[in-house]
Amino acid sequence: MSLSEDTRRLLTQASVATLATQLLKRGLRNSVMLGPAPLARPRQPMVGEAFTLRYIPAREDIDDIAALGDREHPQRKAIETVPPGQVLVVDCRGERGVAAIGAILAARLQHRGIAGLVADGGVRDAAEAASTGLPVFCLGPAAPANVTRHHAADFGLPIACGGVAVYPGDVLVGDADGVVVIPAHLADEIAAPAAEQERLEAFLFREISAGAPLFGTYPPDDETLARYRRS
Amino acid sequence: MSLSEDTRRLLTQASVATLATQLLKRGLRNSVMLGPAPLARPRQPMVGEAFTLRYIPAREDIDDIAALGDREHPQRKAIETVPPGQVLVVDCRGERGVAAIGAILAARLQHRGIAGLVADGGVRDAAEAASTGLPVFCLGPAAPANVTRHHAADFGLPIACGGVAVYPGDVLVGDADGVVVIPAHLADEIAAPAAEQERLEAFLFREISAGAPLFGTYPPDDETLARYRRS
Amino acid sequence: MSLSEDTRRLLTQASVATLATQLLKRGLRNSVMLGPAPLARPRQPMVGEAFTLRYIPAREDIDDIAALGDREHPQRKAIETVPPGQVLVVDCRGERGVAAIGAILAARLQHRGIAGLVADGGVRDAAEAASTGLPVFCLGPAAPANVTRHHAADFGLPIACGGVAVYPGDVLVGDADGVVVIPAHLADEIAAPAAEQERLEAFLFREISAGAPLFGTYPPDDETLARYRRS
Amino acid sequence: MSLSEDTRRLLTQASVATLATQLLKRGLRNSVMLGPAPLARPRQPMVGEAFTLRYIPAREDIDDIAALGDREHPQRKAIETVPPGQVLVVDCRGERGVAAIGAILAARLQHRGIAGLVADGGVRDAAEAASTGLPVFCLGPAAPANVTRHHAADFGLPIACGGVAVYPGDVLVGDADGVVVIPAHLADEIAAPAAEQERLEAFLFREISAGAPLFGTYPPDDETLARYRRS
Amino acid sequence: MSLSEDTRRLLTQASVATLATQLLKRGLRNSVMLGPAPLARPRQPMVGEAFTLRYIPAREDIDDIAALGDREHPQRKAIETVPPGQVLVVDCRGERGVAAIGAILAARLQHRGIAGLVADGGVRDAAEAASTGLPVFCLGPAAPANVTRHHAADFGLPIACGGVAVYPGDVLVGDADGVVVIPAHLADEIAAPAAEQERLEAFLFREISAGAPLFGTYPPDDETLARYRRS
Amino acid sequence: MSLSEDTRRLLTQASVATLATQLLKRGLRNSVMLGPAPLARPRQPMVGEAFTLRYIPAREDIDDIAALGDREHPQRKAIETVPPGQVLVVDCRGERGVAAIGAILAARLQHRGIAGLVADGGVRDAAEAASTGLPVFCLGPAAPANVTRHHAADFGLPIACGGVAVYPGDVLVGDADGVVVIPAHLADEIAAPAAEQERLEAFLFREISAGAPLFGTYPPDDETLARYRRS
Repeated sequence: MSLSEDTRRLLTQASVATLATQLLKRGLRNSVMLGPAPLARPRQPMVGEAFTLRYIPAREDIDDIAALGDREHPQRKAIETVPPGQVLVVDCRGERGVAAIGAILAARLQHRGIAGLVADGGVRDAAEAASTGLPVFCLGPAAPANVTRHHAADFGLPIACGGVAVYPGDVLVGDADGVVVIPAHLADEIAAPAAEQERLEAFLFREISAGAPLFGTYPPDDETLARYRRS
Repeated sequence: MSLSEDTRRLLTQASVATLATQLLKRGLRNSVMLGPAPLARPRQPMVGEAFTLRYIPAREDIDDIAALGDREHPQRKAIETVPPGQVLVVDCRGERGVAAIGAILAARLQHRGIAGLVADGGVRDAAEAASTGLPVFCLGPAAPANVTRHHAADFGLPIACGGVAVYPGDVLVGDADGVVVIPAHLADEIAAPAAEQERLEAFLFREISAGAPLFGTYPPDDETLARYRRS
Repeated sequence: MSLSEDTRRLLTQASVATLATQLLKRGLRNSVMLGPAPLARPRQPMVGEAFTLRYIPAREDIDDIAALGDREHPQRKAIETVPPGQVLVVDCRGERGVAAIGAILAARLQHRGIAGLVADGGVRDAAEAASTGLPVFCLGPAAPANVTRHHAADFGLPIACGGVAVYPGDVLVGDADGVVVIPAHLADEIAAPAAEQERLEAFLFREISAGAPLFGTYPPDDETLARYRRS
Repeated sequence: MSLSEDTRRLLTQASVATLATQLLKRGLRNSVMLGPAPLARPRQPMVGEAFTLRYIPAREDIDDIAALGDREHPQRKAIETVPPGQVLVVDCRGERGVAAIGAILAARLQHRGIAGLVADGGVRDAAEAASTGLPVFCLGPAAPANVTRHHAADFGLPIACGGVAVYPGDVLVGDADGVVVIPAHLADEIAAPAAEQERLEAFLFREISAGAPLFGTYPPDDETLARYRRS
Repeated sequence: MSLSEDTRRLLTQASVATLATQLLKRGLRNSVMLGPAPLARPRQPMVGEAFTLRYIPAREDIDDIAALGDREHPQRKAIETVPPGQVLVVDCRGERGVAAIGAILAARLQHRGIAGLVADGGVRDAAEAASTGLPVFCLGPAAPANVTRHHAADFGLPIACGGVAVYPGDVLVGDADGVVVIPAHLADEIAAPAAEQERLEAFLFREISAGAPLFGTYPPDDETLARYRRS
Repeated sequence: MSLSEDTRRLLTQASVATLATQLLKRGLRNSVMLGPAPLARPRQPMVGEAFTLRYIPAREDIDDIAALGDREHPQRKAIETVPPGQVLVVDCRGERGVAAIGAILAARLQHRGIAGLVADGGVRDAAEAASTGLPVFCLGPAAPANVTRHHAADFGLPIACGGVAVYPGDVLVGDADGVVVIPAHLADEIAAPAAEQERLEAFLFREISAGAPLFGTYPPDDETLARYRRS
C-alpha cells in the first residue's frame, strides 16, 4: 500500500499535533517520537513513508572506519536504496552522543529526493547537514561517527525510534513539534479529518485570539461550528 | 498578600540569576526550576503571582478527548479563572513528551492578560503558541495532547514544578536563564536589593569588560563601590 | 609540551567531527564530550590547551556567597591564572541546574584572551555571557550561582568533563557539533591529517551534492582521489 | 463504594501480574507502579483501598524537623486518620534519596491495622520498618528524613505514585512483582475473573512444568480447558 | 560454529569478571551487559550460545492479549524453537516496567533444557519464574505482560541487550556479577586462558587473604607465579 | 583532627538515619550518599575516617590491564596506604557498569584492618568480595575491571561520591540505610546527641509498637520524655 498523492497533500496540511489527536481518537496513545526534533526550522511539514535502518551497539573488532567502504554496508546501501519521497528512519537506541549520519550522506539523501531523515540519535557536521535542505529530525549535533558506538545491522525491518514502533511503509510526518508515526493502514483514513481539524483549529485560534471565551468555542459548540462553516 | 506595583516593577529590573542569589543569601538553595526554558527569546522578564494547576497521570477510561469539553474540566476552568497579571503554573511531573497546553489555549491566556505560562512539560503547536506573545516557559515542543498522559486534577493548590515547590501567590520571575520561585512573604523583601544588585552587577560587568581584575572588583571592595556610587 | 602555532592553525581548519574520526583511527572512541554545546553559534572553531578547574558538591557550612570574595578561591584564582590562548574547562559533574560561571567572569576571561570556556554544567546570565564574544560550551543557561551546589576544589589536575578525561595541556577544539579532547601527545600528529581530511570531505560534499553516488565517492576510490588532487 | 469482603478475598487469591492482565483486557495499560517494590518478601498479597498523601518539594524556611510536632502536619495526621484495612499511598515524586516514612511511623501504621504502605520514595530505618510486619512497598532504604526534600502538602486527593494515578478508594494490591492500582469501579468486576485466571494459570504452570508444549496449553485450547475443569 | 563441550566446560570454570578481562585484553571494552542481574542466586554459571528475540514498542491496534495465541507469534515460536543448551536473549530496550516473559514460559524453557534467559527488561511472576530453576538474568520483577509495551518482532537476528551487541551464536556467560557476551569467534580462544586466570586468581585471593601485600602478588611477580605453580 | 575512640563508639550506637537528622538540624541537607548500599547485610555500622581515591574517565591509550602492575598506580598505592580503621572512598562518578575494585583488593583491605569500602560504582566478584567480611557499600555487582572505564587519578583529595562532598578525614558511617558523611569538625559534636537520639527512638519505637498514639509520643511531649527517663 503506497502513499497516494491525495493523502500526502492532505497530510501536508495537518500539523503533527493534529495528527496525534486523530490517532488518539482511534486508541493510539504512543504515536509521537520522544526526542527527535528538527535540526533547522522546517519550511513545510516532512511527509513520507518510512524506510527503516537499524543500528545495534558497535563491537570494536568489527566496527571501524574501514567498514564503511563496503558496498554491502547496510547504512550505505540503505541510503542508496531508499526510494525518493520516502523518509529514512534510523533506530539509534536513543544514543545522543554519536551520529546517525553526517553532512555528506545528508547531501546524498537530498540529491536523491528523499523526503527526510529521522533518527533517535545525533547528526555530525550538523550545521552543514541542515544546509543541504534535507529535513532532518534528530537529537541534535554529535561529532562521533556512527561506528564509534553503532553497527548498522539491517534495513527494511520494523524498528523502534524515539520510543515508537516504525514499520516500513508507515507514514511519518514531521514539523516543529516533532515526528508522528501513522500506521500505514490509517494514513488514508485520517488524512482528510486531520486537514479538516487543522482548518477548524486555525479558525478557532483566530476567534480565541480575538477574544472569544473557551467555553462554546474550544471545543466548539453548534453556534461556533456554524460560524466556522460560514467563514 | 498581593503583589504591589512597586515590587513588580523592581522585580522586572532584576534577573532570575540575581533573584536566585538573593534567595540563596536567605537560605533558599532550591528556588530555580530545573527544566522550564523560554519557548521564544523573552523581550522582558515575566513577573507574576503563581496560579497553580495540577496534572496527575492519565487513566484510559476517563481521560479522552471528550473530557475537554466539560466546563468543569480543571484545565479549562483554570485558564478562564486565573486573574490577569498572574502566571499559570502547571505541574506536569517533568513529562517532556506530552503537552501542558497548545496554541489556542495560549492565545486565550494572552488575550486575558495573563503574565505567562510555566510548565515542567511540553507545549504543542509550539511555534504558534510562541507567536501569541504569551511568555511561555516549558520543556520544549511536544505534539501529544495533555489527555494522552495527563489528567487535570485540580487548581489552586501547592504543587511541584521543575523540582521546586510552588504555592499559590508565590511570585514567579522568568527570563532567558529560566524561572525562579519567590516565596510570597519574601517578594517585597528582596525586590529592592535585587534591583540594586542588578545595577551594581551591570556596572561591574562594564568594569570587568574594560579590563578591571576580579580581585577588588568582583566582589567589589570599598574603592570599587565608591566608584559605582559615583557612576 | 605547548601547542605550536602550526598545530593550532591546522586544528582551526578541522571540524570536531573530523578530529574525532582521526582519534577513532588511533583507537580512541571516547574523545568527544557528551553534553557541552555552544551557547552562541560559533564564528570559528575554539582551539586551545586545557586549563582544568574541578568542582565537587557544595556543603552548606562552607559554600556560601561570602566564599567568593577570597583571593584563594580556586574558581576566581583559576580565572586570573589561566594563560591567554588556553581553554578553561570545568568539571561540574553534569549538573545542568547550576552555573559554572556567569557573565562577569566570562567578560574577564574574554578580556584576558582566553580561548574559551567548557563546562559540563550551566552558565548564568547566559545571554550576556554569550554577548562577550567568549566561546562558551556548556549544558545551557542555569541561574543558580555555583556555590548553590558546587565547591571549587582545585585547578590544574586531570578532571572528568562531559564523560571524557581532560588532562591539563590536552588540546580542546570546539565547534557547532561540540567539544573534542585531543591528548597532548597526539595534537601534532593528527593536526595535518585532520586538516587534509577536512579539505577532502569538503570536496566530497560538493561532489555528492552535485549528484555523485556514494560508492566510489565516499569513501573515495582512486579515481575520486585523483579528481580531488586535480581540484 | 467500599471494598467488600468478597472482593478483598478474591483479590488476595490473584497475583499483581494477573490483575494487570485483567485491567489490560479492559483497556488500561498503565496500572502497575514503576519503582515500588516490597522491602521484605511478602507473606501474602497486600490488598486495600488507597488513602493518599501528597508530598511536594521542601522549602528550607518552612520544612524543618520542628514541623513534625504539629498535630495538623498532614503526614502525621494522615497516619492517625487512615482507616484500618486501607493502604497509605505517598506521592514522593520518585525521589529515592529521601524517606517517605521511618520505622516508628511504620510501627504505628501496623498497630492501627493498616493494610500497607506504598511510596515512590525511600524508607528510613528500613530493616526495622520491615520488622514491624507492615507490608511496605517503596524504592528502597533512604536515611534522610522526609523534610529534607519533601513538604507534606495534603491527603485525601488524587495523586501520582510510581507513574500511575491513584484516586482515594482505588484498590491497591501488592506482591513480590510490585503494586497494581485497580480503579474503584473495576474492583468488583475483575476480582472473580482474576482469581479464576490465577487458578487456571497455576494449572497451566504445572502442565507446562510437566512437559506440555506451549501451543494448545498456553493460551489453553478447548482440550486443555476441559482437562483444567476436571482437575 | 557451535560451542564445543570443552569450551563450555572451561567457560563454566571462569567468572564473568575474568571473561570480561580476557575480552578487554583483546580490545573489547563493551562486553558486559548493563542491567541484567540474576533473579535468584545462581548455583553455577549459565553458559550457552545466544538465541535472540527482538521486541519493539507495542502499538495498541495490534498488540493485545489475543495476539499471544498465534502459533506464529515470534515470542512463543522462539520459546519452542531455541535449541536445548542455548540461551534465549531478549532485546527489551531497557524497559524495566514490563515483563519479557513470565513463570509459565520460564517453566517451558526449563523443561526444554534451555541454558537460561537474559533480558534487559522485567520478568513477571518473578518468584515463581525463579523457582523453576531456569537461570534468569533480567532487570527485576515487573507485572505487566509484554504486550503492554512490547511487540515481538522477530528472532534470530543480531540485537542490542543491556547496551551490548548480541549476535546469534555468541556465547553468553552469566553469574552473580551479570552477563558477558563473548563473540562466537573468540569463545574457543579465551576459554582456556580464562579458566587458568580464574585458578590463578583463586590462589592470589588466598595469598592476599593470608596477608601477602599487593605488590609482587597482584599482579603476580615471578616468585608468586612460581609459588602458584607449586600449589 | 583524628577520630577519638569515644566518638567512634558513640557513632557506632547511632543509625545513619539519626546522624542525617543531627546534620539536618545543623543546616546540612545533603549528607547522605545517593546510591551506595551494602553488598551484604551489615552486622554492625561501619565507622571510620575517609581516605579518598579519585577516578576519572579512562583513555584507551593509557588505561589497560598492564597499568595495574605499577607500584605508583594510585589505586594500588591507596589500598596499601589507607590507615587501618579508615574507610576507602572511591569517586566513580556514579558509573554502575564498571567495578571500583574486586575481591582480591577487598581481601587486602580486610587484612589491613580497613573499616570499609565506599564507592559510587560497582564491585566485581561481588559475592566473593562480600565474603571477606569487609563492609562494602557500592552500586552493586559489576564485572568489568576499573580500567575499562576509569583511570585512577590520585588519592587524598576532596572528592564527590554519591552526590556528596567527601573531604579526607570526614567521618563516614554506613548501615543498612546507606552511608552518611559527617564533616570532620562536627563528628565530636554530634556523636553524643546522636547516640542519645537513638536510645530515645528505640524507646519510642517500643511505645508506638505497643499502641501509643503519635501525638504526644513522636515527637515526645514532656510526659513521654519523663517516662523515657525512668525507663
